[in-house]
Amino acid sequence: MIINRHKLRIEWGDCDPAGIVYFPRYFEMFDVSTNLMMEAAGYPKYETLKRFDLVGWSLIDVGAKFIQPSTYGEEVEIESRVSEWGRSSFKIEHRLFRGDKVAIEAFEKRVWVGKDPDNPDRLRSVPIPDEVIAKFKD
Amino acid sequence: MIINRHKLRIEWGDCDPAGIVYFPRYFEMFDVSTNLMMEAAGYPKYETLKRFDLVGWSLIDVGAKFIQPSTYGEEVEIESRVSEWGRSSFKIEHRLFRGDKVAIEAFEKRVWVGKDPDNPDRLRSVPIPDEVIAKFKD
Amino acid sequence: MIINRHKLRIEWGDCDPAGIVYFPRYFEMFDVSTNLMMEAAGYPKYETLKRFDLVGWSLIDVGAKFIQPSTYGEEVEIESRVSEWGRSSFKIEHRLFRGDKVAIEAFEKRVWVGKDPDNPDRLRSVPIPDEVIAKFKD
Amino acid sequence: MIINRHKLRIEWGDCDPAGIVYFPRYFEMFDVSTNLMMEAAGYPKYETLKRFDLVGWSLIDVGAKFIQPSTYGEEVEIESRVSEWGRSSFKIEHRLFRGDKVAIEAFEKRVWVGKDPDNPDRLRSVPIPDEVIAKFKD
Repeated sequence: MIINRHKLRIEWGDCDPAGIVYFPRYFEMFDVSTNLMMEAAGYPKYETLKRFDLVGWSLIDVGAKFIQPSTYGEEVEIESRVSEWGRSSFKIEHRLFRGDKVAIEAFEKRVWVGKDPDNPDRLRSVPIPDEVIAKFKD
Repeated sequence: MIINRHKLRIEWGDCDPAGIVYFPRYFEMFDVSTNLMMEAAGYPKYETLKRFDLVGWSLIDVGAKFIQPSTYGEEVEIESRVSEWGRSSFKIEHRLFRGDKVAIEAFEKRVWVGKDPDNPDRLRSVPIPDEVIAKFKD
Repeated sequence: MIINRHKLRIEWGDCDPAGIVYFPRYFEMFDVSTNLMMEAAGYPKYETLKRFDLVGWSLIDVGAKFIQPSTYGEEVEIESRVSEWGRSSFKIEHRLFRGDKVAIEAFEKRVWVGKDPDNPDRLRSVPIPDEVIAKFKD
Repeated sequence: MIINRHKLRIEWGDCDPAGIVYFPRYFEMFDVSTNLMMEAAGYPKYETLKRFDLVGWSLIDVGAKFIQPSTYGEEVEIESRVSEWGRSSFKIEHRLFRGDKVAIEAFEKRVWVGKDPDNPDRLRSVPIPDEVIAKFKD
């Protein structure tokens, strides 16, 4: 099973006047984590979109629970995995760790989106290839 | 009842290589909307934190459903209201409109946080003043 | 002569732990100002890139002098104008005002960039159309 | 002589609809580089501000020349050094490399700022300690 972990440092510009991370920055970090996880599974974003003729892995639902704040200079670690596979959607779960404490629990639900072959101006969800799901479940 | 609406333009720097808004930017927009709503109710952030001796309105839970993407140059409108009041927490609901279509539904759950009078190094949730709730329910 | 002015509010998420605007945010504000100025002159970005078959108005040189900091909640105004026209480049000057004081002086030098007709994989600078320069000098 | 180098990856959210890095993001990267360089010299930001009773290393002048754009997924390297020491100001030069090509040349001029001991509400520039300059020139 693919579980991606990456460490990152909280930077000055990530933080707000309260001295803690401004929460939208966390979603940037999670988006990076999703891309790194896909790469770790053999599916780097640009190449994969091209290979499967996709417009994107469009986000349809996102959520996060904030348990502890982080401050400038801290090193944190994000652990990401796919927790659910649908026909054309998948759900990614992220946990952000400060040391061994979970500071944030978050998820992203994304859909594989391509162009309608009958009308390239229209988008539609497309089935996730079996090989992708197999690779993650390995 | 306080319902805040504000219009904003999607800017070039809000958008990603797919040409649509990079989703963490929406959370910045919603955070702005929350602050504007509090102001509209008579509680501008800095003054209110000082007046009630608060550290912040800390976000503990956030979520968003993305129904339609937005692109550079569009004018959108965010409508924000408080949908739930707890003892020390409150829930804000945001809807982002493109024309008359709801493009995003989002919420933020926030807690009023102050310093523990017995130990100023510790934080604790504090009850939301009745006058604040009354003002919003008016 | 086209001089664009736009007011904006400094938001919580624009500011850093020192409580003042994190300086890269100013460059986002100036980029918005440039786009608004072009629009005011009749050249909205997407339409203009398409109409003149451009890849972009690529930034080649940028600078800013910071005279006074700004903080959350302030309303500031940015005044933008083109100060120099070259064959394919132009220089934009921005001044950010807090009240009647200039808080930042900045410039952007940009080049009109299109595709080489003999080799669409290569980019090259293209002459700025006379009508554009005339419009700004009017 | 202290020369800081750090590698970083261009992320999806750093890029704009043209598919290249949105330029204000580079200034965030350079700000990170400055902080890492100060740390490498033994002067991590928070501790150093506290130790020398500073309000900050305030940016007064910044500039960048953009030679080549960068795109999503690239690994780039930023090399940073102090090129000038004044009484209370210093100038940092950054070069961003794509492979062995310099893609951006930038500088930041910053001033050591503290509180006026006669009037803590007023800020003033303070001399940079000799030990700091010596450490960098070593």
